[in-house]
Amino acid sequence: MNKQELISNIQRKQSFLCVGLDPDIDKMPAHLQEAEDGIFLFNKAIIDATAPYCVAYKPNLAFYECHGLKGWQAFEKTVAYIQENYPDQFIIADAKRGDIGNTSAMYARGLFGDSNVDAITVAPYMGEDSVKPFLVYPNKWVILLALTSNKGSHDFQLTEDTAGERLFERVLRVSQKWGNDENMMYVVGATQGSLFADIRKVAPEHFLLVPGVGAQGGSLADVCQYGMTKDCGLLVNSSRGIIHADTTERFAEVAEEKARELQAEMALELQKYTK
Amino acid sequence: MNKQELISNIQRKQSFLCVGLDPDIDKMPAHLQEAEDGIFLFNKAIIDATAPYCVAYKPNLAFYECHGLKGWQAFEKTVAYIQENYPDQFIIADAKRGDIGNTSAMYARGLFGDSNVDAITVAPYMGEDSVKPFLVYPNKWVILLALTSNKGSHDFQLTEDTAGERLFERVLRVSQKWGNDENMMYVVGATQGSLFADIRKVAPEHFLLVPGVGAQGGSLADVCQYGMTKDCGLLVNSSRGIIHADTTERFAEVAEEKARELQAEMALELQKYTK
Repeated sequence: MNKQELISNIQRKQSFLCVGLDPDIDKMPAHLQEAEDGIFLFNKAIIDATAPYCVAYKPNLAFYECHGLKGWQAFEKTVAYIQENYPDQFIIADAKRGDIGNTSAMYARGLFGDSNVDAITVAPYMGEDSVKPFLVYPNKWVILLALTSNKGSHDFQLTEDTAGERLFERVLRVSQKWGNDENMMYVVGATQGSLFADIRKVAPEHFLLVPGVGAQGGSLADVCQYGMTKDCGLLVNSSRGIIHADTTERFAEVAEEKARELQAEMALELQKYTK
Repeated sequence: MNKQELISNIQRKQSFLCVGLDPDIDKMPAHLQEAEDGIFLFNKAIIDATAPYCVAYKPNLAFYECHGLKGWQAFEKTVAYIQENYPDQFIIADAKRGDIGNTSAMYARGLFGDSNVDAITVAPYMGEDSVKPFLVYPNKWVILLALTSNKGSHDFQLTEDTAGERLFERVLRVSQKWGNDENMMYVVGATQGSLFADIRKVAPEHFLLVPGVGAQGGSLADVCQYGMTKDCGLLVNSSRGIIHADTTERFAEVAEEKARELQAEMALELQKYTK
C-alpha cells in the first residue's frame, strides 16, 4: 500500500487506529484456549468485529513464535485472512528485526516476499546495511524504532551526543538518507507526550506508528496535539486495550465497542488538525 | 550451560569455535535443495562433520523464518538434533530480538522454554525492560549486541555522548546493572580489531561472541590479541566460511577441513594467552 492510499483510507474511515493482534492465550475464552486453531479463530473474530473502525492490523511476531510451528501457522493464516477479506487494511509485522545485510535480506524475503505484509518494524542499532534490504520492495515500508513507549527507552534513546543531538534524533536524521516518507515510518511511543514536537522538527512528513495508548497509559490527545500533520501522519496502535478488554465469550463484542470508541475520538482529532 | 562448563569445553577441545548454521538454499548441493527436509539434512551433515572442532552452534533465525513453516520446523529439528547427539555444544539462537517487557517475555518463553537453546542474541536499543525478561532463566544467556561487525555499526554504535562515552561502551556499562558475566555475553565483530581493547576496559570478564571472521574479513589473531582473557572469554563464529565453503556434494567434508583448520589456529592462540 502506498502513502496516498493509506491517507485516503484514514480520511474515508475517519480513523487512524491500528489494532495490535497480540493474542495472549491465557486471556482468551476457554473454548478458544482449547481449540486446535484457537489463536487464528480468536484473531478472526477480533478482525471481523473491528475492521470498520481501524485502518491497520499489527500482529507482533513474539506472540506467535512463542507457540512454535502452531503459532507460525496462526500468523500466516491471520495475514492471509485480512488480505482476502479486508484488502484495504495496512498490515504491519511487528518483528523489530535487523541484522547484517545478507541476513536482513532473508527476513525481508520471508515477510515481504512470502507473507506479503505491508510493513515491518526494524531496530536501528546495526545501522544502514541492516535496514536497506527491507527498502527494496515497492510499496512496502520499514517502520524504524525511534523513541519507544517503554521505560527502557530512557537507557539509550535519550542520550545526547557531543553535537547536542539525542540518539532518537540521530536515528531520525541519519535514516532519512536511506529512505523517505513514502517507504519509511518511525515508531514513537504515545507515552512520550510533548517529545512528539521534537520528532516533528526532524521528521515533519513521516507517518509515525504510535504504540502505548491504553494499557501503557499514553494520551491520544497529546499525541495528536504534538504529532499530527495535515495528512494525519499517525497510526495509533492499541493491542491489549481492545483485544483483551474482555476475557469471556463476549470478547469480540467488547473489542468492537473499544475500537468504535477510539475511532470516535480519532474522528474528532482529525477534524481538529487535518485539512 | 553455565560459564564454568563452557570454559571446560573450550579447554578440553582446544577450540572456541562457534559454527553459524545459516543455510542458504542456493548454496546447498542440488539433491538437498530438492529434498523435503533439505535444510535439516544439510545442517545434520554439517554438525556431524564439525562437532569435534567446535564448542557452539549458532543458527540465525532469519535463514529459517524466510521459509515459513518449513523453515521453522527445520530450526526446531536442528536444535533437537544437537541436544540429543552433542549435549556439550552451546546453542545460540541468533535472533536479535528485543521488545517491551511483556513481548520480550514471549520471545524468551519460545526460545528458552520450548526450544531450550542456551543463549539468545538481543538488541539493546529498547533498554532494560526489553532485556530483563530473557535473564530470568537459570543457566541461560543473553548475548547483547554491543559493537557489530558490519559497516552500519558506525552509524550509531560509535557515537560519543556528552560524557565522552561511545554508545557501545554505554551499552556495555549500563547493561552490567541488569546481568553479569554468568548470564550475559556481548556481540563484538571481528572486524573491529583494536577496539577489542576498549571493550575489555569496560567488560573484562564477559564472554564475547565474535562474528565476522571469514566472509566478513576479520582477523582471528587481532581478536585474540586484544580480546582474549585468561579463561579465553571468546566464542568466534564462522558461518559461510565453513558451511558454504564448498557447494557440491563434498560440502560436509570441506566444512570439516575448514573447522579443523580454525580449531588448530585457535589451539595456538589459547596456548599463547590463557593460563
